[in-house]
Amino acid sequence: MIGLVSLVGAGPGDPELLTLRALARLREADLVLYDALVDRAALQHAPQARWAYVGKRAGRHSIAQQTIERVMIRRALRGERVVRLKSGDPFVFGRGGEEALALARAGVPCEIVPGVSAAVAAPALGNIPVTHRGLASAFVVVSGHAEDAYAPVLRSLAPGSATVVVLMGIATRAATAALLLRRGWPSATPAAVLYDASRPEAFSWRGTLAELPSAPAADAPGVIVVGATVSIAAQLESLSSAGGSYAAAR
Amino acid sequence: MIGLVSLVGAGPGDPELLTLRALARLREADLVLYDALVDRAALQHAPQARWAYVGKRAGRHSIAQQTIERVMIRRALRGERVVRLKSGDPFVFGRGGEEALALARAGVPCEIVPGVSAAVAAPALGNIPVTHRGLASAFVVVSGHAEDAYAPVLRSLAPGSATVVVLMGIATRAATAALLLRRGWPSATPAAVLYDASRPEAFSWRGTLAELPSAPAADAPGVIVVGATVSIAAQLESLSSAGGSYAAAR
Repeated sequence: MIGLVSLVGAGPGDPELLTLRALARLREADLVLYDALVDRAALQHAPQARWAYVGKRAGRHSIAQQTIERVMIRRALRGERVVRLKSGDPFVFGRGGEEALALARAGVPCEIVPGVSAAVAAPALGNIPVTHRGLASAFVVVSGHAEDAYAPVLRSLAPGSATVVVLMGIATRAATAALLLRRGWPSATPAAVLYDASRPEAFSWRGTLAELPSAPAADAPGVIVVGATVSIAAQLESLSSAGGSYAAAR
Repeated sequence: MIGLVSLVGAGPGDPELLTLRALARLREADLVLYDALVDRAALQHAPQARWAYVGKRAGRHSIAQQTIERVMIRRALRGERVVRLKSGDPFVFGRGGEEALALARAGVPCEIVPGVSAAVAAPALGNIPVTHRGLASAFVVVSGHAEDAYAPVLRSLAPGSATVVVLMGIATRAATAALLLRRGWPSATPAAVLYDASRPEAFSWRGTLAELPSAPAADAPGVIVVGATVSIAAQLESLSSAGGSYAAAR
């Protein structure tokens, strides 16, 4: 019998943000292939499994996508249950679609286990809702990794019509900020960067769109948020220091 | 001591898509206030708690938002641990920001527990990735409940520059489709509606943007997706019927 391959979202980092279904798949897994940004503590839920890190490695070549797909297919055809554990959600910049297609072509059954995406969770854990009545009733999630990924959206979107969330965009934050300013976004638009969201080492920066290029270029995953809802975080925190006590986000 | 209020995302419906942290908060809760679209099976994880449904009720007035906030504050001030269980993620069209502000103003500690948003999970469970290399490197999530919520985004966004996801948009699907067509989106752009995603009664419709107005107007929550990535679902399913076996989505 061919084994099932589960493409599983691990959430933004903290293993407490795994879903119950993710846990169930890990418990039954024979093999876990996990990505960069997945907390290794998640692997404790897979006591029977062998596991392998297949994400980016500093100073070394990454394992080719084709190799990962070949391993999954070979193991599943031997009857093993394979969990492909991906940061966030497997279908948000996770190559989940490519892997699902490769598996389907090989006749291997595959399921998607949705996860908590950092696109929403990182802002939330920094006290920033991506939508808020009167401030934003839409949000846009773009990849900052290359200009042709983010430019068509950011060049067209009407200023202020949606909260903008940029993943993988720390390196290009000056270019994305310049693009939004040229498009007519006010330079005082609130902006934030959430680094290592949901992890013990989480920290954040807040300022304006004009100041975004000078946000720290930390060697950590960061999620950029631009829009009026960023101001909610400051409101919550000032209420809290004035006697309330909004719980500190991780 | 004042009790903590946790604004908890319950995910798209299936209780298996609750996070471990949601489960931990339910286990310790004294009171659970839950919304429409939250599966009551989630409440089995809160054995000590009293619970109350505070969502929309057919043919009756909804409980006012102010009343919900007043109850949370009163109970927390008495030392009770309160879980506010919301469909999807509390900060995606969930009024989470409003409730966090009300609690902070009252001096009540509050935390956000991110959840799996239907904006990503409903497409995923219908075999549609919101991003896919070569097809989409961005996605937009809008509320379809009112024209001033979706029109500024859909009127400006460059055709094809992002996958469009519309929540609460079944009733307005003809208007949103017309808006996109006027903006220049090709009428043959793939489109889908995912109804009751993650639930046993889930079903979906797929067609083109031009056909979207004739998608069924079921009395069920539905998530609309428009964009090239919708075609991945058809590819996966045809590979599957040709010998592969892509697991049926719930």
